Amino acid sequence: MSRSTASLLVVGSVGLDTVETRAGKRAEVLGGAASYFSVAASFLAPVRLTAVVGTDFPDAHTKLLADRAVDLAGLERVSGKTFRWSGVYAKDFSTRTTLDTELNVFQDFNPKLPAGWGASEYVFLANIDPVLQLSVLEQAGKPRFVACDTMNFWIEGKREALLKLLARVDMLLLNDEEARQLSGEANLPAAARAIRALGPKAVVIKRGDAGALLFHEAGVFAAPAFPIENVVDPTGAGDSFAGGFMGWMAREGVVDPMTIRTAMILGSVLASFSVEDFSLDRFRRLDLTQIRERFAAFADLVHFEKIKI
Amino acid sequence: MSRSTASLLVVGSVGLDTVETRAGKRAEVLGGAASYFSVAASFLAPVRLTAVVGTDFPDAHTKLLADRAVDLAGLERVSGKTFRWSGVYAKDFSTRTTLDTELNVFQDFNPKLPAGWGASEYVFLANIDPVLQLSVLEQAGKPRFVACDTMNFWIEGKREALLKLLARVDMLLLNDEEARQLSGEANLPAAARAIRALGPKAVVIKRGDAGALLFHEAGVFAAPAFPIENVVDPTGAGDSFAGGFMGWMAREGVVDPMTIRTAMILGSVLASFSVEDFSLDRFRRLDLTQIRERFAAFADLVHFEKIKI
Repeated sequence: MSRSTASLLVVGSVGLDTVETRAGKRAEVLGGAASYFSVAASFLAPVRLTAVVGTDFPDAHTKLLADRAVDLAGLERVSGKTFRWSGVYAKDFSTRTTLDTELNVFQDFNPKLPAGWGASEYVFLANIDPVLQLSVLEQAGKPRFVACDTMNFWIEGKREALLKLLARVDMLLLNDEEARQLSGEANLPAAARAIRALGPKAVVIKRGDAGALLFHEAGVFAAPAFPIENVVDPTGAGDSFAGGFMGWMAREGVVDPMTIRTAMILGSVLASFSVEDFSLDRFRRLDLTQIRERFAAFADLVHFEKIKI
Repeated sequence: MSRSTASLLVVGSVGLDTVETRAGKRAEVLGGAASYFSVAASFLAPVRLTAVVGTDFPDAHTKLLADRAVDLAGLERVSGKTFRWSGVYAKDFSTRTTLDTELNVFQDFNPKLPAGWGASEYVFLANIDPVLQLSVLEQAGKPRFVACDTMNFWIEGKREALLKLLARVDMLLLNDEEARQLSGEANLPAAARAIRALGPKAVVIKRGDAGALLFHEAGVFAAPAFPIENVVDPTGAGDSFAGGFMGWMAREGVVDPMTIRTAMILGSVLASFSVEDFSLDRFRRLDLTQIRERFAAFADLVHFEKIKI
């Protein structure tokens, strides 16, 4: 960890996933956007996690987070059952079908930041109700950099709160379909332009195995996805991307165009590992050496000579 | 043109397109894979064009090709009507519907290379019947580098001839859906591996606005697509990519991994210009300075610092 590493806060879901892909099936494994985010980010910077689980949340999952030095002071454990999601992916991973969503204790989630966490310098508001995302922002002081995620459900159902939120964040991460839905523009550069007019200085459009695009005041940056032949489970890839991204931002402690580009690549690196196993299992056997090697592989993946034409 | 520029031959369709997009409609404009290829490549290397048109083919179109110094000795003009295609793109460009295809004189196309062209060093077999692609290869001597394109119609209907062809080419360019169809693999790195086992040492998978991937013995290379906000007409983008690619290969006159990477970017550059206007109209006002500027913009699009993590 570099001396300058800034504090990084995430608020979002922690849950139990039951997932089936061509590679197999796993029941009640650790899931939730904030889980993926925290563990991915933890390789680069210490993370403060704000979330809620029920009394049935397995200690083994808590231990995985704690072992990655995720600060769990904001992880409420309340009476009731933990948030659960189950889904199945098409054999070619082109679509996924949600079989069941049980909000359980997440239904009444009302995030309260522990004492001192309001001063967190980097804040990631994972995909939850924009009203709750706003409430966390109210509790935060003056973070240096705030990024958020969202989804079709909120774009359609809570547009007003979402627009209020967007006016106050530095960056929005969302996938291509969400970008089109939010902006009403089919063309991605046009969609990004429209979204930036709503507030965020930067927009990251995630495109799965087609990589991610960053649109900000310094122009456009394209991060490729790493070609992975044996995809096991794409769940949480976008949240792992956000974790790698924000982890690097917090570790560097500066917000400038070149740091943001590097953060895009580290987001892509962590996302590429995430899909190589079920749940957060790939992160259990991940270390900084492998991260460094894949970062170098990304550099090679896009390298070409600046020749004279 | 550098002194070492090698000879570049293309065989494919030249036709009249009627196309409608959100940007407007054009009737009987210059189209066909070999037209896009030739004009795109002509900015980098002289091109020999083998194709067939009818007696109704407008002189203005022939003149456009001639003005770009495309050698038209192989452009047969035979009695009958020129190949015609008409189609309409969805407003968001996500799909296109073919309204009509009239093969006309293309129906009996039997490419004959003019004297001396059999010694062409670089050969591109654009998307036509693989039986005809093979016949051109028979007429060619020992080209240094042969690339070909194909489509779903031939993968399904002429698989045997296509497999015979693939055993004899150095590189196959195709889009993602075609790669999946040909290989039976949904995952693109797996599809590329399977296709390379059929013969081509290199496979380029074109993904439209998600860029293109090169798989070859030296690994993987990802070329982004240039984010274009005002797409006018995507027709011919893939053929323009092939033109920029092969134009650079012929101009350099060497087949090595770094030259192929640069060719991927020049393919992307020419494709990005192609979609900015209908038909080949963008190429009419294109020059080497603009190509150099966009090449530099591609370098910036993917640039990040090789920092220490």
